[in-house]
Amino acid sequence: MSDIEFYFDFASPYGFIAAMQIEAIGRAVRWHPFLLGAVYKAVGQSPLQHPLKRAYVIDVDAPRMARRLGLDLKVPAGFPEHALPPSRAFYWINRQDPAKAILFAKTAYRRYWLQGCPTSDAEVAVDAAASIGYHDDAVREGMQTAETKDELVFENQEAIRRGVFGSPFFIRDGEPFWGSDRMSLLLDTPAQDT
Amino acid sequence: MSDIEFYFDFASPYGFIAAMQIEAIGRAVRWHPFLLGAVYKAVGQSPLQHPLKRAYVIDVDAPRMARRLGLDLKVPAGFPEHALPPSRAFYWINRQDPAKAILFAKTAYRRYWLQGCPTSDAEVAVDAAASIGYHDDAVREGMQTAETKDELVFENQEAIRRGVFGSPFFIRDGEPFWGSDRMSLLLDTPAQDT
Repeated sequence: MSDIEFYFDFASPYGFIAAMQIEAIGRAVRWHPFLLGAVYKAVGQSPLQHPLKRAYVIDVDAPRMARRLGLDLKVPAGFPEHALPPSRAFYWINRQDPAKAILFAKTAYRRYWLQGCPTSDAEVAVDAAASIGYHDDAVREGMQTAETKDELVFENQEAIRRGVFGSPFFIRDGEPFWGSDRMSLLLDTPAQDT
Repeated sequence: MSDIEFYFDFASPYGFIAAMQIEAIGRAVRWHPFLLGAVYKAVGQSPLQHPLKRAYVIDVDAPRMARRLGLDLKVPAGFPEHALPPSRAFYWINRQDPAKAILFAKTAYRRYWLQGCPTSDAEVAVDAAASIGYHDDAVREGMQTAETKDELVFENQEAIRRGVFGSPFFIRDGEPFWGSDRMSLLLDTPAQDT
């Protein structure tokens, strides 16, 4: 069985909901934070541009789905804003310790979607990394290296190349799954080619 | 317990999937076919305008969800086209016999999404109605009366007024649910106001 590729944007409520559950499915998962804005820029559409849909997702459905996990959703201040800082911090940590990068992703996600911290604020990402043992200044520097920046650009391009168009988005054995409500299907046997 | 309002467009694959299951939830349901195009026109967006999303829905996800119900999805010829004829036929039948209207909706849906018949072809709707006992000419005439046409226009306006922006869309005790993947939540206790 191949690993499940898990694409998510830190500014995505359903990405948060997926991140809180993905480890429970008991299969190896590769975490890929990316910028949904970069993908939408490439295809000429913006997420949640429909006002009714946005109100439904943010005010009704995402909080409802979070409640089912016992979580009290809080929308990040300034939402929707980009999530560049935690995405970069993730890849900087990931090069040193992939397990820690996942711990960082979950920690940062909780700051955004349970505490309502702004996704675009670099200090929130720095603080989340500090809380799992990284030194503030090392994180600040690490987020700004060309290597880190390039890795996120590469991951955004990979997401586009693989046909990712939303968050969360999963790829298992070449089969795409969009949305936290498709996670239960990840354990099904792969679809037959018919 | 109030009835569940069930809004669906005959040209919607997830509307089809919902229609095949909605009676199993064991609560009274009011069926409201409507034209998603009329709603999108009112808010300035078109459904599935994102090419990747459309390919995912039509080629991957909707067939996959249908397979879980033991159904082999076939996309209607000419998709996406409007579904004016079955929507009008539904309301014409509904004034005479609401139970028959539901039977008609399921029959027509199977023609579109299991046999691939075009949703915009009036004769497909006429034939679906004939298969449950209506005379061809009576259906053709009934679909063209001012009363029938006005009722569909009214239902489209009601959908807009109620904040419906997709298909299928459910309203239960004032709470909105968008998508066939939210049907399992319809039996939960209503959300608390917090």
